[in-house]
Amino acid sequence: MKLTILGCYAATPRTLTNPTSQVLEVKNHMFLIDCGEGTQVQLRKHKIKFSRINHIFISHLHGDHFFGLPGLVSTFRLLGREKELNIYGPKGIKEAITMLLKLGDSWTNYPLRFHELSSGESELVYEDDKITVHTIPLDHRIYTNGFLFKEKLGERKLNIEAVRYYEIDKAYYNNIKRGRDIVTEIGEIIPNKALTFDPPKPTSYAFCSDTAYKPEIVPIIKQVDCLYHEATFLESETHLAKKTKHSTAIQAAIIAKEASVNKLILGHYSTRYPSIQLFKEEASQVFDQVELADDGKSFEFI
Amino acid sequence: MKLTILGCYAATPRTLTNPTSQVLEVKNHMFLIDCGEGTQVQLRKHKIKFSRINHIFISHLHGDHFFGLPGLVSTFRLLGREKELNIYGPKGIKEAITMLLKLGDSWTNYPLRFHELSSGESELVYEDDKITVHTIPLDHRIYTNGFLFKEKLGERKLNIEAVRYYEIDKAYYNNIKRGRDIVTEIGEIIPNKALTFDPPKPTSYAFCSDTAYKPEIVPIIKQVDCLYHEATFLESETHLAKKTKHSTAIQAAIIAKEASVNKLILGHYSTRYPSIQLFKEEASQVFDQVELADDGKSFEFI
Repeated sequence: MKLTILGCYAATPRTLTNPTSQVLEVKNHMFLIDCGEGTQVQLRKHKIKFSRINHIFISHLHGDHFFGLPGLVSTFRLLGREKELNIYGPKGIKEAITMLLKLGDSWTNYPLRFHELSSGESELVYEDDKITVHTIPLDHRIYTNGFLFKEKLGERKLNIEAVRYYEIDKAYYNNIKRGRDIVTEIGEIIPNKALTFDPPKPTSYAFCSDTAYKPEIVPIIKQVDCLYHEATFLESETHLAKKTKHSTAIQAAIIAKEASVNKLILGHYSTRYPSIQLFKEEASQVFDQVELADDGKSFEFI
Repeated sequence: MKLTILGCYAATPRTLTNPTSQVLEVKNHMFLIDCGEGTQVQLRKHKIKFSRINHIFISHLHGDHFFGLPGLVSTFRLLGREKELNIYGPKGIKEAITMLLKLGDSWTNYPLRFHELSSGESELVYEDDKITVHTIPLDHRIYTNGFLFKEKLGERKLNIEAVRYYEIDKAYYNNIKRGRDIVTEIGEIIPNKALTFDPPKPTSYAFCSDTAYKPEIVPIIKQVDCLYHEATFLESETHLAKKTKHSTAIQAAIIAKEASVNKLILGHYSTRYPSIQLFKEEASQVFDQVELADDGKSFEFI
């Protein structure tokens, strides 16, 4: 998986900082997560092909997480898109986008499918043969979901030397990769483990923004390879975090520690602080593997 | 008057070009005209104080002219604005903006007044003691208005030497500035013209975008000091201009010539051309005083 941060600052777009948006590249998908104002310019800047985006996940309907969506949907039309576009987001998102398009008398010439969310429980919102995406119900001022992207466990890997040694016909290879044992002509059973290696460990990524400190999400994101968790405030503004239903860097780190995640990426910084390094310093008191998101930065995890 | 171009390119925001938005500074006002995506970042970049913007004029409801408005309205709230904000634009704009704010449960904490337009005739939409703003009905794919900003004729200027020569009491100065003649104690009439100079010539600016070639606007914009007229296409794409209800550079120049304006500024360029200089070259065949808008460029006219 490769994560590219297009924007990771709270509140309003500024000259050098962008509101929330990121792209997750996984198994030939380019999932767009949130779409603050200016996202389409950020996509161009980072040379991400618009045509590769077929699924957009919106956490909640605050402007800094979706005011770039109407423009992106319109630009897809101008670029002559024909492929279906899927948008997953809170109930109300369909009416908002369709209304804006209708006002401009400019409906899309490609299929636009909305998947409106309203459940308070984690639910499966996307699945194909290699990937699942579940919601992570968060606790913010309005209805908000994070998203959990998980690779499925792949097929077992063929041990070429072993299958040659046992002189197994190629016709059986697919069955072996699916975990089957082999019975030879003389009735001998060769266990699958002797013919294969374990499949690569599936990778997982959890996006959690915006949210107050919510330990109830820990079981959902348990042991993910990477957790992006918002950290709008530092410890000195804990009262503001509580009031606005955001998290502090330390609260994000506690969630990461409790969930035993591999890596924590912080983001959604309030612009009141002189340096985002302060977020890392505070979170590192609780959890070791802390990284800082920043606009344009990429992370790879396997 | 000082005009600052925040964005003047057609269709979609790109890394180096912005959709339509401009600021007209006149008599202590900062009028914002159109508000494409990214306008708030452009305002910051050009160090225009958000608090000075009290009136926003929206030509039409295509995304490249108003998708920056929801974000700007939200940012005003985050900045703690208290002053009233007035938005002038096509019917439907109120529902669109209020719906987006309601979805985010984030109504403004300052008065937000919408002035919805639906007339096909030029009408007065704003007036104070120094300025009027009228609509200029345009011909585009959806309901669209340009805007005509006109200074009012000011008071006459006192000829200090003359009033001293006639020993006129200061109590009469205001009446003299308003054009009154003076009758001296011995009944002699001193005509106003002997005591005053003509007031400074009022300045006027017409913004016309987006529109097909529409000669019917000529009487409305007659002899303005500056006309911004869209020129999306060059002559070679006249068929596209007709089909999409846009103008060519030459059509913009014909309007400028027929209206005897002082200066023509071209903008709303399609990004298909290698250089915007081509627009100036074509328009200059018809009209002498042609200038090219570009993002970040300012024009002063008196």
